[in-house]
Amino acid sequence: MSEAAVSFPPARVGADIDTIDTPALLLDLDVFERNLEALDRSLAGRRVRLRPHAKAHKCPEIARRQVARGAVGICCQKVSEAEVFVESGIADVLVVNEIVGAAKLARLARLAGRAAVGVCVDDEGNVGELAQAAADAGSRLDVLVEVDVGANRCGVPPGPSVLALARRVAASSRLRFAGLQAYHGRAQHLRAPEERRAAIRGAVDELRATLALLEANGLPAAMVTGAGTGTYELEADSGVYTELQPGSYVFMDADYGRNLDADGRPVSRFAQSLFVLATVMSRTRPSRAVVDAGLKAHSVDSGMPLVCGVPGARYTRPSDEHGVIELDGPGTLVLGQKVRLIPGHCDPTVNLHDWLICVRGRLVEDIWPIAARGAFF
Amino acid sequence: MSEAAVSFPPARVGADIDTIDTPALLLDLDVFERNLEALDRSLAGRRVRLRPHAKAHKCPEIARRQVARGAVGICCQKVSEAEVFVESGIADVLVVNEIVGAAKLARLARLAGRAAVGVCVDDEGNVGELAQAAADAGSRLDVLVEVDVGANRCGVPPGPSVLALARRVAASSRLRFAGLQAYHGRAQHLRAPEERRAAIRGAVDELRATLALLEANGLPAAMVTGAGTGTYELEADSGVYTELQPGSYVFMDADYGRNLDADGRPVSRFAQSLFVLATVMSRTRPSRAVVDAGLKAHSVDSGMPLVCGVPGARYTRPSDEHGVIELDGPGTLVLGQKVRLIPGHCDPTVNLHDWLICVRGRLVEDIWPIAARGAFF
Repeated sequence: MSEAAVSFPPARVGADIDTIDTPALLLDLDVFERNLEALDRSLAGRRVRLRPHAKAHKCPEIARRQVARGAVGICCQKVSEAEVFVESGIADVLVVNEIVGAAKLARLARLAGRAAVGVCVDDEGNVGELAQAAADAGSRLDVLVEVDVGANRCGVPPGPSVLALARRVAASSRLRFAGLQAYHGRAQHLRAPEERRAAIRGAVDELRATLALLEANGLPAAMVTGAGTGTYELEADSGVYTELQPGSYVFMDADYGRNLDADGRPVSRFAQSLFVLATVMSRTRPSRAVVDAGLKAHSVDSGMPLVCGVPGARYTRPSDEHGVIELDGPGTLVLGQKVRLIPGHCDPTVNLHDWLICVRGRLVEDIWPIAARGAFF
Repeated sequence: MSEAAVSFPPARVGADIDTIDTPALLLDLDVFERNLEALDRSLAGRRVRLRPHAKAHKCPEIARRQVARGAVGICCQKVSEAEVFVESGIADVLVVNEIVGAAKLARLARLAGRAAVGVCVDDEGNVGELAQAAADAGSRLDVLVEVDVGANRCGVPPGPSVLALARRVAASSRLRFAGLQAYHGRAQHLRAPEERRAAIRGAVDELRATLALLEANGLPAAMVTGAGTGTYELEADSGVYTELQPGSYVFMDADYGRNLDADGRPVSRFAQSLFVLATVMSRTRPSRAVVDAGLKAHSVDSGMPLVCGVPGARYTRPSDEHGVIELDGPGTLVLGQKVRLIPGHCDPTVNLHDWLICVRGRLVEDIWPIAARGAFF
């Protein structure tokens, strides 16, 4: 077990962009910073708190910038992610997911002794295990009941099931009923704005009734948290959500790029800041270029990456270490040329890389470790 | 840049399988060893050498076992992979891929001073760069010309283009023309045996003519290397291939499991040794269980994983950290239960994990680092 992976960044700070080895994960800092500003601007005057989802970036440098701009903390999906972010100085970390299993629960409860740590539940037995883990660790945990408002994944249905779980949580001296987790994941990628609006309206109506039920039973929910990059303004305006969890807005991806605004044009608030830089490594046919970035450098679960700045170029076929790009004509892309790809889906793509190479113009300005890469426990 | 990912294995040697934290990559050692034996047995008496593809496992412990059983060395796709395997004691490493870019070429040429290292070319300019890098490093490189025999990816067409490149290689005192790389990737996953046979027959016919052309011009190819788990016996019997490169046979996956034999049954020489162990983390609807293994724990590029040992259970919907399993009835899968998933595609799944948890029966017998995880440079 002594052989660790050789991991060193594929670039040097201060070097020209052309010296970056590939495949590399590139962050355009100008665009990234504009995305941070655009989110803040869109929430100005709205009475909701921002808790960005760190599962998208897995990067303490980004989390610290988000908190420095006013985010209350971050959320994440896994205990091992939470450990990385607490370790890096984030004081308020919400695990917006259920945590099952003795090893994970013990680590979560210990972490709650070092920072404000919260977690979600959707099962009565799990509430008991959480309370026991907190008692064993001598800590207290904030607990949110997860409500399934349309994601069809985790969470209990709105209404009496939520009240029953909230009562279980409130009955434990080691747990504090902190509110509701209500993330409508499916709504994020509905293409038309009226579809997204209808989905969130349905979620909000159900939440409102559930909140009234809790209130009537002496268990008001101090926090209602959820929302993603595709819908967060709808949750912000709902009067129900108190916290928003967008994550992808810092990067964007090809799939989010297919969301449309009311005029049928791509939603343009956020721009693409994240790229996989690849090199043309084979060029033996006029209409085909092969790049060195395949399934191990970006995720194709939400479709193929887009090729930037090469008219008519289509990334059509990934294999483990290769990507085949079909070309309209022989005049574009030469051997050794570097190409920017827009990943199909940013979150699982980031998770394939150890380093985020931060560029401004043609300069490598910084290199940020993706410290929670692989932190899926 | 000081923050490294917290990475520790999700299990302890000597512990029971139920104590493994999830998601974890599990190797069933009994099956794995039978797969190694089955490959050797199938090649007994055949005059071909075995050079397993290490891109599948990225694990020095496995490479050493393959070499100990008689493999001539390993092949891999990337210079950084080759570095890991040379470092771990493998003396003969063939990069069966084109290497483009000054940084990579310099590292490759340096590595050739420490082990027998070969590489592929499909471009005349690249031959010159290889020769320069070898001269700069004071080393010599074995060079194979890659022939496109149907993969439609890298490589030059069979025939005169191969001869032209071989001449360029042979003209350099720093390079040695070692033969041909001819991998028919697409043929590996053709479902019917007659389709696979026809594809490889076509490749062999083209190779035979090309080999005669090389021979007639005083440049005999000492080595013809290629083949994968789906077709390697066809290449072994071809009289043309001298080396075979199967990789997935040590693990298998759901996609290879769809290949059929002459009787229309799944090919059964190799069995599934690789699993993603997941935990049921949410169970709020009778017909739905949610596990803690999503897109960051296995790759869905070749289809969804299969659920082992749970009749009627279908993994239908992955998200970043979750997998939704649809169930025929409420009686199966309880919260906290551990489930084995057969990955849709083994190579990119292995690349998501840092550790291979090796089990025999119910015991964790060993933990092997996936040392070349993320080595895509």
